[in-house]
Amino acid sequence: MVRGRISRLSVRDVRFPTSLGGHGSDAMGGAFPLQHTDPDYSAAYVVLETDAEDGLKGYGITFTLGKGTEVVVCAVNALAPHLLNKDLGDIVGDFRGFYRQLTSDGQLRWDPRKLVSCLDFRYITDVLTEEEAYEILRKGQVGKKEREEQMLAHGYPAYTTSCAWLGYSDATLKQLCSKALEDGWTRFKVKVGADLQDDIRRCRLIRNMIGPEKTLMMDANQRWDVPEAVEWMAKLAEFKPLWIEEPTSPDDILGHATISKALVPLGIGVATGEQCHNRVIFKQLLQAKALQFLQIDSCRLGSVNENLSVLLMAKKFDIPVCPHAGGVGLCELVQHLIIFDFISVSASLKDRIWLHLLVPSYISTCARMCEYVDHLHEHFKYPVIIKKASYMPPKDAGYSTEMKEESVKKHQYPDGEVWEKLLAAQVN
Amino acid sequence: MVRGRISRLSVRDVRFPTSLGGHGSDAMGGAFPLQHTDPDYSAAYVVLETDAEDGLKGYGITFTLGKGTEVVVCAVNALAPHLLNKDLGDIVGDFRGFYRQLTSDGQLRWDPRKLVSCLDFRYITDVLTEEEAYEILRKGQVGKKEREEQMLAHGYPAYTTSCAWLGYSDATLKQLCSKALEDGWTRFKVKVGADLQDDIRRCRLIRNMIGPEKTLMMDANQRWDVPEAVEWMAKLAEFKPLWIEEPTSPDDILGHATISKALVPLGIGVATGEQCHNRVIFKQLLQAKALQFLQIDSCRLGSVNENLSVLLMAKKFDIPVCPHAGGVGLCELVQHLIIFDFISVSASLKDRIWLHLLVPSYISTCARMCEYVDHLHEHFKYPVIIKKASYMPPKDAGYSTEMKEESVKKHQYPDGEVWEKLLAAQVN
Repeated sequence: MVRGRISRLSVRDVRFPTSLGGHGSDAMGGAFPLQHTDPDYSAAYVVLETDAEDGLKGYGITFTLGKGTEVVVCAVNALAPHLLNKDLGDIVGDFRGFYRQLTSDGQLRWDPRKLVSCLDFRYITDVLTEEEAYEILRKGQVGKKEREEQMLAHGYPAYTTSCAWLGYSDATLKQLCSKALEDGWTRFKVKVGADLQDDIRRCRLIRNMIGPEKTLMMDANQRWDVPEAVEWMAKLAEFKPLWIEEPTSPDDILGHATISKALVPLGIGVATGEQCHNRVIFKQLLQAKALQFLQIDSCRLGSVNENLSVLLMAKKFDIPVCPHAGGVGLCELVQHLIIFDFISVSASLKDRIWLHLLVPSYISTCARMCEYVDHLHEHFKYPVIIKKASYMPPKDAGYSTEMKEESVKKHQYPDGEVWEKLLAAQVN
Repeated sequence: MVRGRISRLSVRDVRFPTSLGGHGSDAMGGAFPLQHTDPDYSAAYVVLETDAEDGLKGYGITFTLGKGTEVVVCAVNALAPHLLNKDLGDIVGDFRGFYRQLTSDGQLRWDPRKLVSCLDFRYITDVLTEEEAYEILRKGQVGKKEREEQMLAHGYPAYTTSCAWLGYSDATLKQLCSKALEDGWTRFKVKVGADLQDDIRRCRLIRNMIGPEKTLMMDANQRWDVPEAVEWMAKLAEFKPLWIEEPTSPDDILGHATISKALVPLGIGVATGEQCHNRVIFKQLLQAKALQFLQIDSCRLGSVNENLSVLLMAKKFDIPVCPHAGGVGLCELVQHLIIFDFISVSASLKDRIWLHLLVPSYISTCARMCEYVDHLHEHFKYPVIIKKASYMPPKDAGYSTEMKEESVKKHQYPDGEVWEKLLAAQVN
């Protein structure tokens, strides 16, 4: 059993000056230069200390884009009183209660009964009850050993977003794409939505480079209104994208459903979820047939628990989960969730999703996969390991969240060494 | 024209220790004592100073429940760089651009063309275009003068929530209800959802006191799952509530639609909106027929502009707007919006909503109305004036947001006089 109490919570504002290189740029900025055109990938980095004899510590991050990270730090501090002096045994003994407590003002043994006891089914019992969730996990025990071995040998399939950020020149794009092909990547994502002619040129360039058999996805980062999304994608259909990601406001469930309905006959699915803040939004996206690919984000959803309830609902609706990753540490965290999904929930890497009923030739390309961005992994104590375009299962204990202390110190905002220099340069 | 620049932004954490009296209690708390059982009605109170010759200042508040107000204060400070040194003429000259800038990282002359130019139609053009909004406002000019006179003479109808908070004893409830009837109130709201037998007793008590003709509304404050909401309300239908408010998660658009469909045959409408954070959520609630009464909240939606886009969509869908109010200053702010809605948008105080097609006898009770809670008005420089259960139009310039400096100083957290005493008492 877990022993000890949480004795200290510290939270730090850690920022990496990624805006200097144009990494992470997408269509959201447009004429309003406050979003995504100049992201400094950042994190509110939390360390929990305990009085346990073995010196047990916990590490958590929330991914942010720079400005405003201090607000997240403030929110973490506001929640601290609910954690300090809490007995670890009490938390693990009633994980659901503790979770609801935290989300109304985790790692454990993965036993189905215990696991569902950690999830908060409030507001989702109309699509998934505790008993149904248990049944999914119980069935997931069949063939589990083989799937574990498969993961250890081959890893979980990944796709790369690193080649085609909106801020990259065609030359950079070509160079990165060649390199990715050499490294064995077979699935690529391109940012679209700022300018149609640009999109056509860039998509043609990438499709020509990767050939007709490899998989291409597109990401509009919420750029369009609903009718605009349909029109724009009709013009990009010739490049055979598997999905269009975030075509409109991430809050617009019914809008995504309308777009899905219009694009399925073109063989294009809708992917969304990285901005969805809780299980209730995902429940509705599934109910409304608003997506064909569900993209959890390990940091946006509050905790492992909330992510698990979404994995289970996706299984019930037969929708493949293809997580959002990148940012700071999102790959490190979400690899645990998606490998668990394969071993214990979905039990599948290929799905006959309903999109394919209409366009049978697309079946073979519709593998499950997890996003990968080759970025900032060097700051983590247990960075992801990618082999042959796949996530290799992490073998260290924990959620791979711990950062190197040196990286934290250097990038702490505004007084770390990196920021002291950059801010001083701004003043001069 | 407006002249000058924003020279200073100050934000203070102002808290009123309302939890000491059980005011504001509802069903949300339950076994998890972190929400709504002990609310200290609070506000992040913002004062903007300018270098204009007349000393023009601006006042803004966001209503909160105590804990976490420091997070909102932090968020306000994070947005400050987008305001400081901004020229007021530039802001007013491109209100939509300024608004989108603020909401992506107003008051003016109420001319239809100018007004729609302030609104951000991004993500809602599939239900309301700028031209349609202009047409609504243009048609709203007809009979405007008469409606202005009607408002000045009789005010905007209000209902009271002050009688029946969940934490009140039956004796208190009776006493407050008698007093409200004496004062001329004809519309009452009761909090429900914690215990069915309690609800039945309390609803019977109130319905008996107010008689069959007066209007009763119920508010569950997000307590139920979807099927539970339908079952519970079937058991309260005999008390003839006009609506059930927030029956489930405020994020659950499709859940509200399911509940609406089930309750309409019982003559009960669904009301929601106080927790809806933007126009995209309201758009979907209207598209999905998820509500029969739309409850804007002046502080939850970002700015006057966002509220106006929701008023216009509600008009297009023929759904009456019955604002949420109470808290700190919500009545002061929202009275401006709802009186504007009557004069320039809805042009109506009674609506034949589609609910009534099924239950014709309910037509007469379905007046438009605005919530009123008799609470904390004494701290405002221009408090609301209620006469004969109606909001009398404010005659002072501005949005009635300015607090009395003495109130702010006394209630500032944690160093104001009121909190110094309370916190010292906690320590002892």
